[in-house]
Amino acid sequence: MKRGEESRVILFATQNMHKVEELRAVLGSCGYSVEPVDTPKVEIQSSSLETIAAYAAIIAYNHLGKPVVVEDAGLFIDALKGFPGPYSSYVYRTIGVQGILRLLEGVSERTAYFKSVIAYAGPWGVELFTGIVRGRIAEEARGSQGFGFDPIFVPEGSSKTFAEMSIEEKNLYSHRARAASKLCEWLTERTL
Amino acid sequence: MKRGEESRVILFATQNMHKVEELRAVLGSCGYSVEPVDTPKVEIQSSSLETIAAYAAIIAYNHLGKPVVVEDAGLFIDALKGFPGPYSSYVYRTIGVQGILRLLEGVSERTAYFKSVIAYAGPWGVELFTGIVRGRIAEEARGSQGFGFDPIFVPEGSSKTFAEMSIEEKNLYSHRARAASKLCEWLTERTL
Repeated sequence: MKRGEESRVILFATQNMHKVEELRAVLGSCGYSVEPVDTPKVEIQSSSLETIAAYAAIIAYNHLGKPVVVEDAGLFIDALKGFPGPYSSYVYRTIGVQGILRLLEGVSERTAYFKSVIAYAGPWGVELFTGIVRGRIAEEARGSQGFGFDPIFVPEGSSKTFAEMSIEEKNLYSHRARAASKLCEWLTERTL
Repeated sequence: MKRGEESRVILFATQNMHKVEELRAVLGSCGYSVEPVDTPKVEIQSSSLETIAAYAAIIAYNHLGKPVVVEDAGLFIDALKGFPGPYSSYVYRTIGVQGILRLLEGVSERTAYFKSVIAYAGPWGVELFTGIVRGRIAEEARGSQGFGFDPIFVPEGSSKTFAEMSIEEKNLYSHRARAASKLCEWLTERTL
């Protein structure tokens, strides 16, 4: 193993394998692999994804004793004052995709954005990397790939929902891929 | 001032004066006054109100250096898998009462419950007191008293919504008053 090679693995505190695959596709391109790691994930209530991710990453790092990535994301719908926002995962598990469509029945202003915050905690403290993709909420759910609210989100520049795209195509647009690209840049600069 | 009298004030970490008034009405009956106190309130994400309130109370106590009460409450709607639950305040600020009514349009199973958890942190650790009131979601918003989802919640045993009741009447039913009564009992036992 070459010097430094052991640090080319990014530990990712998540149980969501979709997120792992999405990060792998991006971080692989800058020479890093991504491994999910099981660690307590404490999320605070906040309207700021940055705050939620930073807290969670610090706690996970203190627990693991190794640098670790936490990612938090949300879907922010303009006509619903940003709902479901930081609570997207809970809202998905309760009222789900159909609940969101119901709240938007007859609503013509369907603009929304997905935002991802990657927090990377280590001896350097916490670095945050954010990515945003604007788009709109579809009239009905379409597609079966991805996860969460992917079947109703159509990014600007496409007519497909995220759930109708392969990981490679989704990563051309996605908030998470954009945040991961910034992490790539940071990792690359540190090793130069 | 009699010995012990200075401890007959309960500090309540909240900025919600409706909650202060509701607690005052109950705690006054067992000889305690309630004063709101401004302190950082850190709420974690959890499906358990107990966990959220306990964490917040410990942090507030560590910050203040004096015993302090934190209260967390939520509206749990059966047909929506418990939504909005612990995120009721956020959901109220975004999709609001009308959003909940929309999600329940045409839904005949309208049962729900309000739950309150009072966490009282001090040198004794944290004591938790819970109160629940069952009821149903009204077909439309009624009344202008109270706060939050009060205009659409009709407790079992009444035909009025919480927002159509005075504090005294609401406290005959309310989750928060029931939790506060348990706090009263605890306080009384400790001073015997």
